Amino acid sequence: MTLIPEQRAAIEALRRETRPTLRATVPALEEILYEPIPLLDHGFIRVIDYMGDDAAVVQAARVSYGAGTKKVTEDGALIRYLMRHAHSTPFEMAEIKFHVKLPIFVARQWVRHRTANINEMSARYSRVPHEFYIPAPEQLGQQSASNRQGRGETLDAEQAERVLALLREDAERAHANYVWMLNEDEAGAPIDPTRTGLARELARMDLTLNTYTEWYWKVDLHNLMHFLRLRADAHAQYEIRVYAEAMLDTMRRWVPLTYEAFLDCRLHAAQLSGSGLQIVRRLLAGEKIGEAASGLGRREWRELMEILGFPNENGQNEGGPAD
Amino acid sequence: MTLIPEQRAAIEALRRETRPTLRATVPALEEILYEPIPLLDHGFIRVIDYMGDDAAVVQAARVSYGAGTKKVTEDGALIRYLMRHAHSTPFEMAEIKFHVKLPIFVARQWVRHRTANINEMSARYSRVPHEFYIPAPEQLGQQSASNRQGRGETLDAEQAERVLALLREDAERAHANYVWMLNEDEAGAPIDPTRTGLARELARMDLTLNTYTEWYWKVDLHNLMHFLRLRADAHAQYEIRVYAEAMLDTMRRWVPLTYEAFLDCRLHAAQLSGSGLQIVRRLLAGEKIGEAASGLGRREWRELMEILGFPNENGQNEGGPAD
Amino acid sequence: MTLIPEQRAAIEALRRETRPTLRATVPALEEILYEPIPLLDHGFIRVIDYMGDDAAVVQAARVSYGAGTKKVTEDGALIRYLMRHAHSTPFEMAEIKFHVKLPIFVARQWVRHRTANINEMSARYSRVPHEFYIPAPEQLGQQSASNRQGRGETLDAEQAERVLALLREDAERAHANYVWMLNEDEAGAPIDPTRTGLARELARMDLTLNTYTEWYWKVDLHNLMHFLRLRADAHAQYEIRVYAEAMLDTMRRWVPLTYEAFLDCRLHAAQLSGSGLQIVRRLLAGEKIGEAASGLGRREWRELMEILGFPNENGQNEGGPAD
Amino acid sequence: MTLIPEQRAAIEALRRETRPTLRATVPALEEILYEPIPLLDHGFIRVIDYMGDDAAVVQAARVSYGAGTKKVTEDGALIRYLMRHAHSTPFEMAEIKFHVKLPIFVARQWVRHRTANINEMSARYSRVPHEFYIPAPEQLGQQSASNRQGRGETLDAEQAERVLALLREDAERAHANYVWMLNEDEAGAPIDPTRTGLARELARMDLTLNTYTEWYWKVDLHNLMHFLRLRADAHAQYEIRVYAEAMLDTMRRWVPLTYEAFLDCRLHAAQLSGSGLQIVRRLLAGEKIGEAASGLGRREWRELMEILGFPNENGQNEGGPAD
Repeated sequence: MTLIPEQRAAIEALRRETRPTLRATVPALEEILYEPIPLLDHGFIRVIDYMGDDAAVVQAARVSYGAGTKKVTEDGALIRYLMRHAHSTPFEMAEIKFHVKLPIFVARQWVRHRTANINEMSARYSRVPHEFYIPAPEQLGQQSASNRQGRGETLDAEQAERVLALLREDAERAHANYVWMLNEDEAGAPIDPTRTGLARELARMDLTLNTYTEWYWKVDLHNLMHFLRLRADAHAQYEIRVYAEAMLDTMRRWVPLTYEAFLDCRLHAAQLSGSGLQIVRRLLAGEKIGEAASGLGRREWRELMEILGFPNENGQNEGGPAD
Repeated sequence: MTLIPEQRAAIEALRRETRPTLRATVPALEEILYEPIPLLDHGFIRVIDYMGDDAAVVQAARVSYGAGTKKVTEDGALIRYLMRHAHSTPFEMAEIKFHVKLPIFVARQWVRHRTANINEMSARYSRVPHEFYIPAPEQLGQQSASNRQGRGETLDAEQAERVLALLREDAERAHANYVWMLNEDEAGAPIDPTRTGLARELARMDLTLNTYTEWYWKVDLHNLMHFLRLRADAHAQYEIRVYAEAMLDTMRRWVPLTYEAFLDCRLHAAQLSGSGLQIVRRLLAGEKIGEAASGLGRREWRELMEILGFPNENGQNEGGPAD
Repeated sequence: MTLIPEQRAAIEALRRETRPTLRATVPALEEILYEPIPLLDHGFIRVIDYMGDDAAVVQAARVSYGAGTKKVTEDGALIRYLMRHAHSTPFEMAEIKFHVKLPIFVARQWVRHRTANINEMSARYSRVPHEFYIPAPEQLGQQSASNRQGRGETLDAEQAERVLALLREDAERAHANYVWMLNEDEAGAPIDPTRTGLARELARMDLTLNTYTEWYWKVDLHNLMHFLRLRADAHAQYEIRVYAEAMLDTMRRWVPLTYEAFLDCRLHAAQLSGSGLQIVRRLLAGEKIGEAASGLGRREWRELMEILGFPNENGQNEGGPAD
Repeated sequence: MTLIPEQRAAIEALRRETRPTLRATVPALEEILYEPIPLLDHGFIRVIDYMGDDAAVVQAARVSYGAGTKKVTEDGALIRYLMRHAHSTPFEMAEIKFHVKLPIFVARQWVRHRTANINEMSARYSRVPHEFYIPAPEQLGQQSASNRQGRGETLDAEQAERVLALLREDAERAHANYVWMLNEDEAGAPIDPTRTGLARELARMDLTLNTYTEWYWKVDLHNLMHFLRLRADAHAQYEIRVYAEAMLDTMRRWVPLTYEAFLDCRLHAAQLSGSGLQIVRRLLAGEKIGEAASGLGRREWRELMEILGFPNENGQNEGGPAD
């Protein structure tokens, strides 16, 4: 990630000046406010605003469930209770806003999460900068044989080199041609004054999908967790997962009690179907059950064994959202 | 439930006339189209339109995952796979519309589900009919001691009688006074021509919360299932649960494959936290673990024992949405 | 509105302690943070949190670190431009949270606005307080003859007195019977220890619709404006309009530039249909056009004349959302 | 647009078989059901399902406003009334589903409309076909000088030819390299069995933004109209506008009364600000007002003159959503 000096200066100016507020503040999050966290080769996320904290969740739960709860349950336990029982509305009472720089093919996955607010840099208004994502060689996985949407082992060095060269050449050429069609330099002036430039809204179609874009993304805590459960999952594509993991770390600073509950009750949780549960009950009663007797399909049987921690039964879980 | 003759005739007229369509149709659902299913003392649901079927879910999944899946997986298994792995968007591709008559206090719970379309009878435009919900005596549960939001054993006969009398009297008197304030008979004419009536938008505030209202409620299959998972749950309030159960039965006619998967993978499923899962793994490995050694809070330990089917450990699960 | 001493003390404690933040703050809004603004007889709104300001809208429109178009257009003009051209997403970048106390029949209108987050006091968990709305005598409008959903002139004194007495008696009796059924005093203890109480979730159905409830309501600026455009409108019911007007005033403190643009470009704006626009063009060209020659229906003609400020043509506009 | 024979056969099979239904049907829409309407060079839309008709809107309005309206107002006038007064919920009661094939840069604009259901072909699961959008030469507009997001006059023939050649070459090369990296032929078999292919989820990043994608898009009538108002607008980018216009034509078949009202009350309507309205009133009163005396900014003055049909005052309206 490379910030130009103006950007660096703007961030430092914002970080110098504190103001008094009567609102809830979260010092651990203020520590990193505005600061970009570098991701991939040119991307980042940075928190640019937030509203509420763990106490906002608790407060909302207590307006719902009344003062009665106050005596019985302290904050952490109440948050864990809400999480366990799918009480989602109290988690909607806290909000966070990120500035994100990310490759377009990642943005296309991300935007599927509709319950968030987005303002994206417009390629109709502005020239798209000359930045694109080139994976690190160790990220160049083969198409997975067992998982139609995943990647498997890394390509061998020779093929990896060839792939990287192609990605680089195609993105470079596309961007150079884009600029030629626009006929517009970085400052917005014509490059060749004897030629008229193609409309930005058209020229952009020549860019490759690893070109970087930027947006503001604002979301409430409930919907952030929904995003993170899908995108910080081991089956999510690496290039979006690194964003989710950085946001997860941000969430730990912001709402530590909710974070703990989220990790245990969502991210590390497992869902057992009614049939799966019957099998667990029979196993606990001492019965021996194999795939054949389980009544489950092969893939589902393997998933269950994986959940229950029987390594020699383990297979490929193919979950995670498709895009 | 009492339909006036005009309503009965209108339904019969609609049910008499079939038209040809090129769209997918579901004969088992057409059988009950427009027909009210009576609920509580004056309520009902009836399906008044639908779009799509199980095949629409499969078709949407296949546009996402490509023709490749077609060979491998047949429809039922694909739907079960989608359900297990929280692929929600294919289920958004089918839609259903209900006409519902329900008490206002139930409507207030229902409307919390925001991802649906509603058109409700307006008490600003129309006189509210003289119909209110009086529970059956066996439904008059005491306040549950263990569960702050639930009901426990039934009141004794004497107190039940007194409660029913009060509910009836208060609703009757409130409606009579409402009509007096409106000064408007059922046909919309003044009752006492020498008096002006109070605006409907004001007079309505005198009605009790068990007064019936009506609405059209249109929802996609994904959001319907979300509603049903919360409202057909044993911890949902009885008066909304009967609606959810009737809709569940409707869903069985409409999308039988999705229904089967939903029952097993959602309604009868259990969520194990990371900590809960570790305990299950240790139990399966033959370890003896009691509440004290579990590291779980008391309530959570009981919930886990209940899930695992150990009856003498069972406690009260307090889940379900609050309202 | 009556705050109990504990509530008053809690608000004062919150207002005493400022904390430093790097986020944007709005001093004019901080001045009233947490403070209830009394509405109707027992209701209120109070701002309990906010995120962003006018600059957040501008920043989102510019999606930048702060550079770019800034030279060309200043903030107020940019915001007005966004408002005029229905660019809604930048206004989604600021968020506000209210605590609202309001009669249930108003809450039923309010909750139709689905794009907001709500946590409402649950009458399944807590005893509903003994507070209900009784209109001021001058608010007791007759049913409007010209507008099916509105109110017209005030009732005469004698009838008004009778209406108020009925409203008071019915609400009092219903609440007293509710408490008897619950058998629970304000502290949650049984009133008559020899009797078991009816479950709260059932007893509440006896309450009248003017009973007060409370909720937290969190919304972004775009959706707040949508709410205000409909509910601060002259055709909105008085009892919800007073809430909208108080929120409008809050908005003026929070985002003054957006407020100015909103007033002129939305709240005081008029929509002309294509046909209406043709008539305006012909009128401007000096043509004389009356209702008959206009091609518009009667009601629409009157609405147009009202918009154009021709008083002797004016009729009743029946707009505004129904409920 | 080129359909392969299997697709053509599948559509014909679907169109051959009608089934009886008790639901509302719309013969004019059934006529084109499943049939692709070609757009751009390889794109299309086709209606694949629908629910409801004009009568569904009317029916929903009447459950809200009561039987009273029935006598007074006939369907077309009622629908126009709803449209004029922004009563949106009745229009949510009808639903339509499209299958759309469109270039990725258009899909990126489209997906901003969040209140719809989408299932898109996944480039993680399937090889992306070799199809990309190349504009017709007459569509190659220059960057507009007056409108930062629009296009102006067409490029001269020589430059146009050069642009088209670049677009073609870059897209061809990128797709060829994509296939090489995948090492997968159209049937899914390895092209070079001695090499492993790169994961699809990675290889796709090399494609250019004019590559075609496909999705199912399901939306209710209210949100469809919102989409059409923005995207069938003269300021929308041509490449999305052609889709909006085809959908508009579809809407005319489906809900002719709503279509008429939508055209006049939304698409051809104009919004006047409070200030603009004051100027119109003064003009109607015979006053002469020029830009200077208007109190409006220059651009806003021109927009107003354009609305009022004064050609020699006309300027560039820069409206329409940005992306």
